[in-house]
Amino acid sequence: MSAILPTIASPRDLQNLSVDQLNDLAAEMRQALCQVAASRTAHFASNLGVVELCLALHRVFDFSRDRLIWDTGHQIYPHKLITGRYDRFDSMRTRGGLMGFPNPAESPYDLFMTGHAGCSVSTALGLASGDFLRGEDDRRSVAVIGDGALPSGIVFEALNNAGFLKKRLLIILNDNRMSICPRVGALAEYLDVVRTNPWYRGLRDKAGDLIKGVPMVGESMERVFHNVKDSLKATLHGGMLFEALGVRYFGPVEGHALPNLIRYLELIKDEEGPILLHVLTEKGHGFKPAEDDPVFFHTPAPFECDDDDCVIAVKKSSVRGYTDAASTAICACMREDERVTVMTAAMCQGNKLEKVREEFPDRFFDVGICESHAVAFAAGQAKAGCRPIVDIYSTFLQRSYDQIFQEVCLQNLPVVFMLDRAGLTGPDGPTHHGVFDLGYMRLFPNMTVLSPADEADLTAMLNWALTQSGPVAIRYPKAVLDTSVTERFGSDRQPIEAGHCESLLEGRDGLIIGCGSLVGSCLEAADHLREEGLDIGLINARFIKPLAPQVLLDRIEAAPWVVTVEENTLQAGFGAAILEAANDAGLRTGPIVRLGIPDRFVEHGDRGELLADLGLDATGIAAACRKLAGREAATSAAVPIHD
Amino acid sequence: MSAILPTIASPRDLQNLSVDQLNDLAAEMRQALCQVAASRTAHFASNLGVVELCLALHRVFDFSRDRLIWDTGHQIYPHKLITGRYDRFDSMRTRGGLMGFPNPAESPYDLFMTGHAGCSVSTALGLASGDFLRGEDDRRSVAVIGDGALPSGIVFEALNNAGFLKKRLLIILNDNRMSICPRVGALAEYLDVVRTNPWYRGLRDKAGDLIKGVPMVGESMERVFHNVKDSLKATLHGGMLFEALGVRYFGPVEGHALPNLIRYLELIKDEEGPILLHVLTEKGHGFKPAEDDPVFFHTPAPFECDDDDCVIAVKKSSVRGYTDAASTAICACMREDERVTVMTAAMCQGNKLEKVREEFPDRFFDVGICESHAVAFAAGQAKAGCRPIVDIYSTFLQRSYDQIFQEVCLQNLPVVFMLDRAGLTGPDGPTHHGVFDLGYMRLFPNMTVLSPADEADLTAMLNWALTQSGPVAIRYPKAVLDTSVTERFGSDRQPIEAGHCESLLEGRDGLIIGCGSLVGSCLEAADHLREEGLDIGLINARFIKPLAPQVLLDRIEAAPWVVTVEENTLQAGFGAAILEAANDAGLRTGPIVRLGIPDRFVEHGDRGELLADLGLDATGIAAACRKLAGREAATSAAVPIHD
Repeated sequence: MSAILPTIASPRDLQNLSVDQLNDLAAEMRQALCQVAASRTAHFASNLGVVELCLALHRVFDFSRDRLIWDTGHQIYPHKLITGRYDRFDSMRTRGGLMGFPNPAESPYDLFMTGHAGCSVSTALGLASGDFLRGEDDRRSVAVIGDGALPSGIVFEALNNAGFLKKRLLIILNDNRMSICPRVGALAEYLDVVRTNPWYRGLRDKAGDLIKGVPMVGESMERVFHNVKDSLKATLHGGMLFEALGVRYFGPVEGHALPNLIRYLELIKDEEGPILLHVLTEKGHGFKPAEDDPVFFHTPAPFECDDDDCVIAVKKSSVRGYTDAASTAICACMREDERVTVMTAAMCQGNKLEKVREEFPDRFFDVGICESHAVAFAAGQAKAGCRPIVDIYSTFLQRSYDQIFQEVCLQNLPVVFMLDRAGLTGPDGPTHHGVFDLGYMRLFPNMTVLSPADEADLTAMLNWALTQSGPVAIRYPKAVLDTSVTERFGSDRQPIEAGHCESLLEGRDGLIIGCGSLVGSCLEAADHLREEGLDIGLINARFIKPLAPQVLLDRIEAAPWVVTVEENTLQAGFGAAILEAANDAGLRTGPIVRLGIPDRFVEHGDRGELLADLGLDATGIAAACRKLAGREAATSAAVPIHD
Repeated sequence: MSAILPTIASPRDLQNLSVDQLNDLAAEMRQALCQVAASRTAHFASNLGVVELCLALHRVFDFSRDRLIWDTGHQIYPHKLITGRYDRFDSMRTRGGLMGFPNPAESPYDLFMTGHAGCSVSTALGLASGDFLRGEDDRRSVAVIGDGALPSGIVFEALNNAGFLKKRLLIILNDNRMSICPRVGALAEYLDVVRTNPWYRGLRDKAGDLIKGVPMVGESMERVFHNVKDSLKATLHGGMLFEALGVRYFGPVEGHALPNLIRYLELIKDEEGPILLHVLTEKGHGFKPAEDDPVFFHTPAPFECDDDDCVIAVKKSSVRGYTDAASTAICACMREDERVTVMTAAMCQGNKLEKVREEFPDRFFDVGICESHAVAFAAGQAKAGCRPIVDIYSTFLQRSYDQIFQEVCLQNLPVVFMLDRAGLTGPDGPTHHGVFDLGYMRLFPNMTVLSPADEADLTAMLNWALTQSGPVAIRYPKAVLDTSVTERFGSDRQPIEAGHCESLLEGRDGLIIGCGSLVGSCLEAADHLREEGLDIGLINARFIKPLAPQVLLDRIEAAPWVVTVEENTLQAGFGAAILEAANDAGLRTGPIVRLGIPDRFVEHGDRGELLADLGLDATGIAAACRKLAGREAATSAAVPIHD
């Protein structure tokens, strides 16, 4: 159906298109977006919202030389469509296919692999500064950042530095009034004022006239705005926040009117100093169901449409994941104990906390994409006698690392960290995999680190954590709940006790110690091995720190060999903690083999596929055990124990 | 000499003092500050600057119930003087004595142990929110934050949340126009405009009159400011940045005029919603030499004064530290390679980069206390072909953790991290000890981690790092350079080669593997042991990651026992990395004993004393070796190998 899109081999091919053709191209791009999103879970509404902005940017700039950073990066799809990746677009988010985020390995038009929000202004400023120092200051730097990412502290740090360095830098504020969830925070309210103030309404209505009446490229913006004093007032009034930081503010401008967008960009592209252009877009624009429900259509489940772009069926999965279990457990705790509060960093939907938000609006705090603040804020609440739960994805919690150290661990305050998305997150890829937390959390004194094997563990761990007087971290994956442990051993098992593992199977021939999300696979492996006549023991580690109790060490010492299994990097991870504990206890152990994530960034793909690739499924675990038991012939696959 | 200060057992004792007496008390407090700062290195100028502010706050609020957070915390001394710690004030920053930062273990008036900047608004907001939820909303929350800490991203995140939650919160902006070094950034320029605008100058001159003319406590500030419309204009104009975030701005007010400070605080203390009061103070106020050179007098070396408060002698040490070596090496690299740039986060002085700033102003970037931005900014420069060096203290680099992950390691960009203050920093204490970096840096793929034994190592490592195509971290302590390795083995030794250790001594009876700062002590220990007839080998590890080469593993396998020694937490540290490497290689090893920092926060004190306490001096290392060699009788001290 697409006529123009297949002809766009690179952004250079945009230069010859008329405005009408560009608008047709935009429609074709939206169709391509719909096709991918309908077929599999993918970022959708945010991409629909930036189609025109993407086209205008590539029309005005030459990003084979100029620099473009899409902040956060999940709105990169239109950019990929017109930078030579249309023919591979249906491979989006599949293993070996296109990544759903910018990826320098795919194209020189992708400069940074991003996924965490707010860093675009810093990197774009770094590029501008570096190009200047390298004598290539003809290169222009552009950062596109959403209003959801804007309150992230690093943006403020970057604006502060940009306004001071005064290098040429264009910051596009892509204001769609949304984070993934409806946006929160005073800055959002401020942008709403800007958007709705009477000056702006006048400006928007007259935008075409104004632009037509002013001199074009080659004349400075100062001159332009001297000619339209009222607009200047509007502009300055609206953007005082940015002007105070030395960043000139222009806008707001309508983000779906291509001719105007192009004209504005032409006007400001060669201006000196840092500039912020406030562009108003609509998340989900051009696809009615997404316009109506941009939260659901941020990353919708696969869906079917009729001919009029109405969604007629959504293939929602009904299986229960760890996130559901966490949400249920959190709700239950909040009903029982009015001291319990919950913090999320713009991930209300991802963390499935909508029901918490509804039932306990006073004790639910969505602070926006401000993880550093979330943790320090929680520490303050804990000091005042509350029992805050910080519910943040494992990889994003890295943004609070110093607050975990100073505000929580150093004070030994009872903050509970729920690390969702810990492990391989699947199609999002390396920016989102949460595979470092076991190491980075266990470093700090006073911190307790746990990982549940199943829902019963998770619920019990949260309840236990809320009785502790210091910080506790509970990490669990983005995955369907593993029910095999529950089915075999029930949900009313050994209670949680500080540092204690849970023995699931006794066995004399070898010992598997499973950590959290992979205990179910360990059980499956043990079952296979036992069928083969190997008397394998199995331990559900539960605790990563502390690891004191003798029961674990006795079992390790008694076993002819031990395999540790974790969905975390092997560097300083759970297996390493076992080595340390064995070493501290001066144990004479047989071989200990550590299975886990190797020391490289793991690509995107289905989580199950990725785990199997790394030898972390039941097959891989069993193979590693057979090797240790001297029964290598029993399996055909050669399993690398360490990468 | 002091007449009033000894009578102040708690802030309650301030209530009965007249203004004149309070001013006398302020003078006595300054004298106490001078006495301590003259006798040993301590934070000084910042404390001189907040004497009146501290008195006014404790006069107006009741911080036995209200909440007070001193951001960063090094300006806590006046607060300590009047909260029951005057009699122990001369123990400041000595082992077992008062900590130079807030310390909840010392006093209920210290709520959070702080040292890292910018978190006060978050924790104060958390306290306000928590008190509200716990039904104790009579408690008021106050955060005192300096203009140096203000640009730190978390402050912006907290303001954004505060303006949204609209809880009562008082933020005092203590604006002394300084970070440790002269402040930088657009926000600083903005505050300068506020400070110097004509409205303010008028306001300041008339401050007394204005205040006398307006109704006092019990009337709302709205009413007050309706009566002084011009001031309102000034106020709004000055604080638009904060008002845009939903935080009402008042000020600026003179910070050394006690009656006015008290009146202002009384006026606003019960106002609803978040308020920022802009207070102008002078760093070093009341002590002429510090007023004249607040950078030097931030933490001056001990000094002598004459009767007129003139400094007549400064006991500056002439010994050369690791920081000097790093600074020299950085300068040399910058002369050789014009691609090399340097980033610091307001630590130009601490990192001894003044000469870099002077010689290479275009390639030197002080971004202010904005570590997250510093790293992402460096990544942008690296992408543009520069060779940035990020020179940040080990403990503060935790604030960039996510940028180290995403912007640097994930992109595999050649950013060099110089981690100064890695290890025990001495009198600053647990907020400043940099004892976690070996673990948190080696977690990430692509990262190389080194630690030099001496200046020759440090220089060679930096030169080597700048030839690498990926990120490299070099960590070194706040300490006098250890010259024993250089003296014995020269400075022209084995060149740096990826993953390779350096063998210093061969020996059959046991092996010490020293990491970085403690290699010198290991050498001393080995010498003692060799004198005692033990043929001890010694390795200078150099690399913490990677740890591939066979030479290290061969030595470990051949040794009857191995002792690893590091100035880092044992959890996931260097010794743990050795265990992992030995495990990965499937080595059959003798006992490996890891010496390092135990899993608790280490107090403040002299670095040498602290290391000795932990068994990390030559005596302790030798004792651990003797124990392994079965020669325990040779030493009298019982040395705990692990805490």
